[in-house]
Amino acid sequence: MGDDSLFSGVIAPVLTPYDANLDPDPVRFADHAAWLLEDGCTGLAPFGTTGEALSLGLTERRRLLDALLEAGIDPARLMPGTGLCSIPDTVELCRHAVEAGCGGVMVLPPFYFKGASDEGVFEHFREVIDRIADARLRVYLYHIPPQAVIGFPVDLVGRLIDAFPGVVVGLKDSSGDWSYSEALLAAYPGFRVLSGSETFLLDNLRHGGGGCITATGNVNARRIRAVHDAWQAGAEDTGELQAEISAMRACIQAKPVIPTLKHLVAHYRDDPGWAAVRPPFRSLPAADGAAVRSQLERAHGYAPAFPRAAAARVA
Amino acid sequence: MGDDSLFSGVIAPVLTPYDANLDPDPVRFADHAAWLLEDGCTGLAPFGTTGEALSLGLTERRRLLDALLEAGIDPARLMPGTGLCSIPDTVELCRHAVEAGCGGVMVLPPFYFKGASDEGVFEHFREVIDRIADARLRVYLYHIPPQAVIGFPVDLVGRLIDAFPGVVVGLKDSSGDWSYSEALLAAYPGFRVLSGSETFLLDNLRHGGGGCITATGNVNARRIRAVHDAWQAGAEDTGELQAEISAMRACIQAKPVIPTLKHLVAHYRDDPGWAAVRPPFRSLPAADGAAVRSQLERAHGYAPAFPRAAAARVA
Repeated sequence: MGDDSLFSGVIAPVLTPYDANLDPDPVRFADHAAWLLEDGCTGLAPFGTTGEALSLGLTERRRLLDALLEAGIDPARLMPGTGLCSIPDTVELCRHAVEAGCGGVMVLPPFYFKGASDEGVFEHFREVIDRIADARLRVYLYHIPPQAVIGFPVDLVGRLIDAFPGVVVGLKDSSGDWSYSEALLAAYPGFRVLSGSETFLLDNLRHGGGGCITATGNVNARRIRAVHDAWQAGAEDTGELQAEISAMRACIQAKPVIPTLKHLVAHYRDDPGWAAVRPPFRSLPAADGAAVRSQLERAHGYAPAFPRAAAARVA
Repeated sequence: MGDDSLFSGVIAPVLTPYDANLDPDPVRFADHAAWLLEDGCTGLAPFGTTGEALSLGLTERRRLLDALLEAGIDPARLMPGTGLCSIPDTVELCRHAVEAGCGGVMVLPPFYFKGASDEGVFEHFREVIDRIADARLRVYLYHIPPQAVIGFPVDLVGRLIDAFPGVVVGLKDSSGDWSYSEALLAAYPGFRVLSGSETFLLDNLRHGGGGCITATGNVNARRIRAVHDAWQAGAEDTGELQAEISAMRACIQAKPVIPTLKHLVAHYRDDPGWAAVRPPFRSLPAADGAAVRSQLERAHGYAPAFPRAAAARVA
């Protein structure tokens, strides 16, 4: 399976909770992150799209990462999102993560610049990496064309791997297009491809990928992890388990994903404040939330083991 | 023509020069901004798309705005771009501009969030405006779907005008779609619509608009301003003058606009360093630059009055 220091398994892009003023809540954040590792996550990717990263200010991101470290979470298991459009702010966030000992960083392309050439995106990454100038840096490219529009064509990924060996080590594929992951896995053995959805988990593993970084890891890590472990153990029913987690995901993403996930955490933690989102997102209507829960519970026996908010606070 | 405190005429989104380390050069920046006001600009919009705003870090933007003020530029003539995806960073830049006395701010929608609802974008602006909580705030919506993807539908603009009277006062239309400006001008008299290109200058003025905020104002302000002034004076040849500046713009935007504009400034200032761009932009190949200059000079008698770099430094 290659380099053990690379991320693998089931990684959750941690949701970002807010307080009553819509400011990030570091206590809820660290509680949730710690619980995700108990629930089966092998790693955490705070400040991904699911974590409303682009809704967070620079200072807020730094403080939230510090909160995870202060809560005792192993930085080697953290792959924070650090990509912004600007080189200096991206460098600042990357440096902060590297200096904190994070196992990797997940970096968006400069997404404001529609129509940027591959050469231009390559030079953006060269400038970022040169400015960071730290041998500990491990970059996972964040390929998410539905949001960023700008992506990483397969050839460009190869150029980056060649130019920055041991630095550009992986990619999160949130394109929703399995053929893209397949092409990367075929072209660049040893490069760590992580699917952006558990729907592709088994395909990813069978083709030599490392696993997935998935939004629903926030609420369903245990069962997603079971698929991963069953595959590793050579179990016969892996396909059935995969079908089940894919169906659960389809149920969750029938409505806007982030508000739905926050609704679920709020409900099962008995902590209504968890449901808050920053604009332009809107909270999930209560009826929609109830419908999703009902379907998850009845069709899939969903019974998450979230700690109740009161208990978590006392502990 | 309505409220005199609103921006009108010809406004340049100021180019951002870099030093040899690709860090912003505040001296060149302030020199250029001051010269633009001499060359005919009625106002300046630093940190627009043309100013590579999204390539600049938060701190860099603040320092560059400070450099303009320290150079003695009247803040009432400044409408800096302050819109980022995140509410806190947008608030920080807006507050800095308002406290500096800027006549307005130009604010992008939260552009990472493809598919955001109008309600969500409205709530984003509500949160931004509420947090700034300063009666001096004057917001110009920055409508640029080619880059931001997310735009401001006509109905949403009306909702923002109604909810924030005297605060949401105008819009820069960089859609390239004249019918959008026309719809706004018809629907919201008194709301200040500024075209994002001088190609629409005469149309804009004839329909009650305020003028334009145009990239080419960086190199051709005098002649664009002449069209504006001819129209105000009721001159007969306004249409011919408009055709001429439209043709010059077409010539300039035949190649990537920002590298072309920086090439022109570098050439006519005799200051090669001015040509630098941050990735993902790439500098204009010399042959392309020579071709643009040749066409501008031969077909349009282009002879800009830029100060030469050496003279500017001595002064």
